[in-house]
Amino acid sequence: MKILVVGAVAGGASFAARARRLSEHAEIILFERGEEPSFANCGLPYYIGGMIEERKKLLVAPKSLLEKRFRLDVRTRSNVEFIDLERKLIRVKPLDGGEVYEEHFDKLILSPGAHPVRPNLPGVDSPNIMTLRDLSDADKIHARTRGARSCVILGGGFIGVEMAENMVHRGIHTTLVQRDPQLMSPFDAEMTTPMQTALTSHGVQVMLGKSACRFEQKGAGVVVHLESGEAIEADFVVMSIGVMPENQLAISAGLNVGPRGGIVVNRQMQTSHPDVYAVGDVVETIHFPSGQPTQVPLAGPANRQGRIAADHVFSRSTEYRGTQGTAIVGGFGVTLAMTGDSEKVLKRNKMAYEKVYLHPAHHAGYYPGAQGMSLKLLFSPQDGRILGAQGVGGEGVDKRIDVIAMAIQGRMSVYDLEQAELCYAPQYGSAKDPVNMAGFLASNFLRGDQPLIHVEELDKLEHAIVLDVRTQSEYDEGHIPGAVHLPVDELRDRLSELPKDKPIVAYCKVGQRGYLATRLLSQHGFDVRNLSGGYTTYRLHARPV
Amino acid sequence: MKILVVGAVAGGASFAARARRLSEHAEIILFERGEEPSFANCGLPYYIGGMIEERKKLLVAPKSLLEKRFRLDVRTRSNVEFIDLERKLIRVKPLDGGEVYEEHFDKLILSPGAHPVRPNLPGVDSPNIMTLRDLSDADKIHARTRGARSCVILGGGFIGVEMAENMVHRGIHTTLVQRDPQLMSPFDAEMTTPMQTALTSHGVQVMLGKSACRFEQKGAGVVVHLESGEAIEADFVVMSIGVMPENQLAISAGLNVGPRGGIVVNRQMQTSHPDVYAVGDVVETIHFPSGQPTQVPLAGPANRQGRIAADHVFSRSTEYRGTQGTAIVGGFGVTLAMTGDSEKVLKRNKMAYEKVYLHPAHHAGYYPGAQGMSLKLLFSPQDGRILGAQGVGGEGVDKRIDVIAMAIQGRMSVYDLEQAELCYAPQYGSAKDPVNMAGFLASNFLRGDQPLIHVEELDKLEHAIVLDVRTQSEYDEGHIPGAVHLPVDELRDRLSELPKDKPIVAYCKVGQRGYLATRLLSQHGFDVRNLSGGYTTYRLHARPV
Repeated sequence: MKILVVGAVAGGASFAARARRLSEHAEIILFERGEEPSFANCGLPYYIGGMIEERKKLLVAPKSLLEKRFRLDVRTRSNVEFIDLERKLIRVKPLDGGEVYEEHFDKLILSPGAHPVRPNLPGVDSPNIMTLRDLSDADKIHARTRGARSCVILGGGFIGVEMAENMVHRGIHTTLVQRDPQLMSPFDAEMTTPMQTALTSHGVQVMLGKSACRFEQKGAGVVVHLESGEAIEADFVVMSIGVMPENQLAISAGLNVGPRGGIVVNRQMQTSHPDVYAVGDVVETIHFPSGQPTQVPLAGPANRQGRIAADHVFSRSTEYRGTQGTAIVGGFGVTLAMTGDSEKVLKRNKMAYEKVYLHPAHHAGYYPGAQGMSLKLLFSPQDGRILGAQGVGGEGVDKRIDVIAMAIQGRMSVYDLEQAELCYAPQYGSAKDPVNMAGFLASNFLRGDQPLIHVEELDKLEHAIVLDVRTQSEYDEGHIPGAVHLPVDELRDRLSELPKDKPIVAYCKVGQRGYLATRLLSQHGFDVRNLSGGYTTYRLHARPV
Repeated sequence: MKILVVGAVAGGASFAARARRLSEHAEIILFERGEEPSFANCGLPYYIGGMIEERKKLLVAPKSLLEKRFRLDVRTRSNVEFIDLERKLIRVKPLDGGEVYEEHFDKLILSPGAHPVRPNLPGVDSPNIMTLRDLSDADKIHARTRGARSCVILGGGFIGVEMAENMVHRGIHTTLVQRDPQLMSPFDAEMTTPMQTALTSHGVQVMLGKSACRFEQKGAGVVVHLESGEAIEADFVVMSIGVMPENQLAISAGLNVGPRGGIVVNRQMQTSHPDVYAVGDVVETIHFPSGQPTQVPLAGPANRQGRIAADHVFSRSTEYRGTQGTAIVGGFGVTLAMTGDSEKVLKRNKMAYEKVYLHPAHHAGYYPGAQGMSLKLLFSPQDGRILGAQGVGGEGVDKRIDVIAMAIQGRMSVYDLEQAELCYAPQYGSAKDPVNMAGFLASNFLRGDQPLIHVEELDKLEHAIVLDVRTQSEYDEGHIPGAVHLPVDELRDRLSELPKDKPIVAYCKVGQRGYLATRLLSQHGFDVRNLSGGYTTYRLHARPV
C-alpha cells in the first residue's frame, strides 16, 4: 500500500509513526512545506523568548530519525499543489528547485494544519509585522528581537499571551492589543482577570476592546494605528489573532469543507472521499459530548486523530470521540485552564446550566507554600452532569482541570466529584480536595441546601440587603458598595438587626462563611442567598480595563 | 434533636460542621479525649520535622471557632467510657478532674479513630519509644528530637517514610526498620524502589525484612534488638507499624465489628444500631468498586463519611460509594501515589488482570525542567476496565494518579485513557499525556498489537533471545545479563542475525523502541515480545537490599 501524508507536524507525524508500527511493508511518503518535520509547535514562543535555549530541542523527531527508525520517505520543502481524486495522485512542487512531479496514492492523509490570519489591512505587508506558525517564522521573530526594545502583539489568545510572557522575558517592552474586551476568548471573561493582572503587573500594556486598522512604516519600526484613533510605535509586531484551516488543497480537490473552513471528516477521520483522511487543525471535528461540528486547533486532538486515521487505514476499529476543548495557557506564574463548555458557549447554545465558583488553596493551608486558585464549575441543573470547568491560579490548576476533564469524558456528574477519592497528603492536596469542594457546592445547590446568587445578578435585585459576613478588617479593606456588615460569628446574636421582608444576599471572602450564614439565616426564616465564590468572585468580575 | 459525637478530628469534626449547617436547632456535643479538636493529623510529621514551623497552624478549626461559628459544644479532655444503647446515653469521664456524668443522645456518632499498634515486646514501655497519633504525641517527639543525634523508625509505611524525611530534615541520623521486604506495603514492591533509593541517598539507613524483638534502655537512649540478631543504638524510637481501630467502646456496647476490628456500617454510615453512626479510621468500609469489606485509614474518606452521616441524620439521601484506596506519600522530592488495587491485591484475590509500565516525562521534554516518572497501570484483560494505577517520580505524579482515580470511579477503561483530552502546553504536559500513553500501551496490548512480557516472566523463558535495541552507549552503561545488542535503527538491515525458531524479548530504555522493534520483527515472522517498560522497569525490579 502506498500512503502519502501532506504535512509532517503533529497529526501527520503521529499518523506516519503509527502507520509504520502497524505496517512494516507500506510505502509511506511525507510531504512537508517547511524545512523540518515534526517540530515542537507549542514550544516556538518559548524558543523565541529564550526559555528553550537550543533550537535543536524543538526538533522532536528529526528527518533522519523518521527515515532511519520508521523508514519514512520524508520530503521537506515540498509543496503539494493539487490532488486528483479520480486518478488518486497528487502534484508536488519541490520548493528548492526541481521539476513538479506526480505521486500516486492508495491512501492520502491531509495534515496541512492552519495558517495564522493576516487581515488585509493597509501596511500589513511590512517585514516588521510577523506571524508565528513554524520554525522559520520563529527564527525570523527570534532574529528581530535582537536589539529590539518594543513590540506590539495583536491578539490575546494562547499565542498572544505566551508571546507576551516571552517578550518580557527578553526585556522587550510589550503592548498587547486584543479586539475582545477580555483576554483568552475561549474562557469566560471573569476567569481571565488574574492573567490580565499578571500581564499588567509585569509591565505588559494590555489594551482590550481595541483593534488595529492600519500600519505605518517608521524608520526601522512600525506604527500600529488602532480603530480607536490611538497609535502605538514599536520595533515590530507579532500578529496572533487566530488561525484558518489550510483548506485550499481540499477545496480544490472537491472534498467537503464545513462552514468555518474545516475539512469534514467522520469519526475515523475519513473525508468525503473514503481514501482521503484529514487530521489536525485542518479538520472540522466533533464536539464532545454533543456531537455537534466544531473547530478546535489543539495539539492533543491532532496527535490522537493521526493515530486514529492510521488505525482505520490498517483496519483497527477505533474512532474519534470528539474534542471537548481542554486547553491551558501559562504566563508569569499564572495558569489558566479549561475543559468542556464555557458559560458563554452554553448561553449561546441556549443550554440550561448552573454554576458555582470556589477559591481553594492548591494544597493543605497548614503546609507551607499553598497557592490560591479560582475554579468555576458548570453543570446541568437537571441531573448535575458536568458541562465544563475553568481554573485560574498557580500550582495545581492543571491537575483539577484534568481530573474534571476525565469526569466529563465519563459523562459524570457533580455528585461524582463529591465522592471523588483523590491523592491527599499535605504537600499535594487537601482531605477535601478542590474537586470535592466543587462537587459539594454544586450538589448542595442542586439539593436545595444552598440557594445561590451570582455577581451579575446583583444588579437585578431590588431592595435586597447585601450582607458582608466577614471580619471587620476584611470589610474595611474593601467590600461590595452598600453592603451591610455583620460577621458570621455574631450572626446568631444579632438576627433582629436583619429584616425578614427583604431578600438578603450573604457573602464572605470565598463563599464558605456565606454558605454557613445562608444556612443559618434561612433556618431562621430569612429569604437569603449566598453569593457564589463571595468577594473573590466579585473581584474577578470587576476586571481592570 | 440531641447529637453526641465521640472524637472531634477529621470525621467527627466534618460531621459536626455539616450537621450544624443542615440544622441550626440541633444540640450537638463533641467529646474529644485530646486537648484540641480538629487538628491537622496529616501535618504532624512535618511539624516535628520543622517544615511546619508554627504549632498553631495545625489547629485547623480551634475549639473557639467551632463553638462560636458552629455553636458546637466542644468538650476536650473528655473520655467517653461507655455507651448504653438501650437507654441511649453515654458515660463521660472528664480527664482533668470532675465527676463522671451521663449524656443522653438521639443520634450518636462514633469517630474515635485508630491507635498506633504497640506490640507487647520486652522493653517497649520505655519513654524513648514513641508513637505518633495526636498533637501531644507530636509534642513529645518534637521535644525528644532536641539535641538528639539518632533515631530508629520502626515501620516503613506512610508515617514511617514521612517521619524519616522529617528526621533527616532535623539533622538526626535515621534508621528505618521495616518487616516487609519493601517500603510502603500497599504498593507493589518495584514501584517503591525510587523512594527507597531516595531515602538511602539522603542518609537514611533502610533495613528491610527486619523487625524488632526487644528494646533495651542504654543511658539516655535505647537499643533496638532485631530478630536477625542485629542491634541498633539510638536516642529514641518512633514506632509506626500500623494502626488498629479504636473499637473498644463499640464492642462493649454490642455494636457489630468486622474481622479486622472495624465497626460495621452501611452506606449511610449507620452501625448495627440505627441511631448510632461511625465514621473514619474506626470503620470497616466498602471497597470500591467490588463492594467487599475493607479497612483503609485515610483522611479523605473520613471527611466524606462524616458528611454522609450528617446527611443521613438530616434526611439527605447520599451514600458512601466505598474507598478505592487512593493514597500518596512524598519524601526527599520523590512522590509515590496509587489508586485502586495493587497487583499483589489482585493476585491475592485471584482477579484476572494485565499490566503495563511506562516511564514518561511529566511535561514536554523540550521544555526545561521535565522530570521523569514511572507509571504502572493494571486493567482487566476482558474489557480493559482500569483496576488500579501506581506512580512514582517527581512532579506530576499526583496529577496522573488523580486523573486515573476519577476514571476508576467512572468505571472507565484503558480505551478511555487513550482518548482522554487533558491540558497540554509544554510546561504542563505532553500532547500525548502520560495518561494517554498508558491507555495507548494497554489498548495496543489488548488489541493484540503489542505482545508484552514482564520482568518477572523472563526467568521462565527458556532458550529465548533477549534483545537490547538501544544505542551502543546505553548498552554499555548497563544491560540485562546475556542480552544480544542490536540497535533498533539497524534492525531492518540485520534481520538475518536473529533466529526465527526462538522466542525473542525486545527491550529498550522505556519500552517505546522495544515496541517498534516488536512490531517490526513480528511482521517479519519473528516470535517476539516487548519487555514492558524496558530496562527502566527491569531496574525497578532489581531493588537495592
